[in-house]
Amino acid sequence: MKLVNKSCTEFVDVLSSKAAVPGGGGAAALVGSMGTALAGMVCNLTSGKKKYAQYEEDIQKILKESLTLQQELLDMVDEDAEEFLPLSKAYGLPAETDAEKAEKEKVLQEALKNACGVPIKIVRKCYEAIKLHEELVEKGSKLAISDVGVGVQCLRAAIISGQLNVIININMIKDQEFVSKVKEETDRLVNDGVKIADKVYERVLEIL
Amino acid sequence: MKLVNKSCTEFVDVLSSKAAVPGGGGAAALVGSMGTALAGMVCNLTSGKKKYAQYEEDIQKILKESLTLQQELLDMVDEDAEEFLPLSKAYGLPAETDAEKAEKEKVLQEALKNACGVPIKIVRKCYEAIKLHEELVEKGSKLAISDVGVGVQCLRAAIISGQLNVIININMIKDQEFVSKVKEETDRLVNDGVKIADKVYERVLEIL
Repeated sequence: MKLVNKSCTEFVDVLSSKAAVPGGGGAAALVGSMGTALAGMVCNLTSGKKKYAQYEEDIQKILKESLTLQQELLDMVDEDAEEFLPLSKAYGLPAETDAEKAEKEKVLQEALKNACGVPIKIVRKCYEAIKLHEELVEKGSKLAISDVGVGVQCLRAAIISGQLNVIININMIKDQEFVSKVKEETDRLVNDGVKIADKVYERVLEIL
Repeated sequence: MKLVNKSCTEFVDVLSSKAAVPGGGGAAALVGSMGTALAGMVCNLTSGKKKYAQYEEDIQKILKESLTLQQELLDMVDEDAEEFLPLSKAYGLPAETDAEKAEKEKVLQEALKNACGVPIKIVRKCYEAIKLHEELVEKGSKLAISDVGVGVQCLRAAIISGQLNVIININMIKDQEFVSKVKEETDRLVNDGVKIADKVYERVLEIL
């Protein structure tokens, strides 16, 4: 059964258990999807309103993009869990002989790189979703402005959490070229994303 | 059907729709519950480990408290939705005659105060959950330290989101004694809570 098909109650219950998945990565993806869904909600509450008619085309574009991002982030809840299993298996490989040690290290390094993939995507997608809220804070209905605020706060938490899950993997990866490339991209997106999220939130407080 | 009995996929879908509930308040409660569940997960991954035997009693206490808070926050997803309906009805009352206007204002003011109740509780409970992570960052298994980081980030988002949902209600409440009492409490808990969350997160980065 897919994790996202569990009820919210079941998801929270299994999150609190010692079960290997979902963990922080899956939580980050779900919180990111929720933050993005709030952008979609603001679009749906703005669309068709006379007062915002001048932005109708932009609102439709933001809505479409938010629905795609929301689904992509939701899918990552289960993708993150799938990438965790090979990593967990790699840790369990025997390492008695030199040949076994070399084989384990090879499989582990590959699994670590794969396990980075989903958190990197979480960071990228949350960054894009924060940019949607940046546009919405000016073009969305003022009646739903607090939902833009909640949305960017969720995405701020999700992008930082994605980065944390990148860090725990790259800390053990030996391919320094891979590590610095991933670190450069995620650090940049998180720094920018958090700055934009904080700016959007300040703007929400001004408008309220 | 209770909102928390919906699957994660359904919850995110209805969140993005123009449906009145769930909105930012319900999202805040669910994200807070997830952040708290991550504290429970760290306890479950620490308990019984020789290396952390000295903290076993504390870990059991934190686990118990986290399970209570997690459930309370989860319950608030639906409580928030229930308080929204009378408010929505109050807005729809007729206000043609002076008597109608007076009656509408009375009902509306009461509904606004009630609608504040859940977001205030979200702020209080998230503050308590952040304090659990503050203890866990030192006593919890270092293997799960990134989950403390994700947990406080979720709770940071949830406590600020709870506050936003307090603000949108008290902005329209005329009872200034009520307003300043609520504002004083929530501002204090959010300021302290965010400071502690940021400190815990910095500590997670040091440990990683």
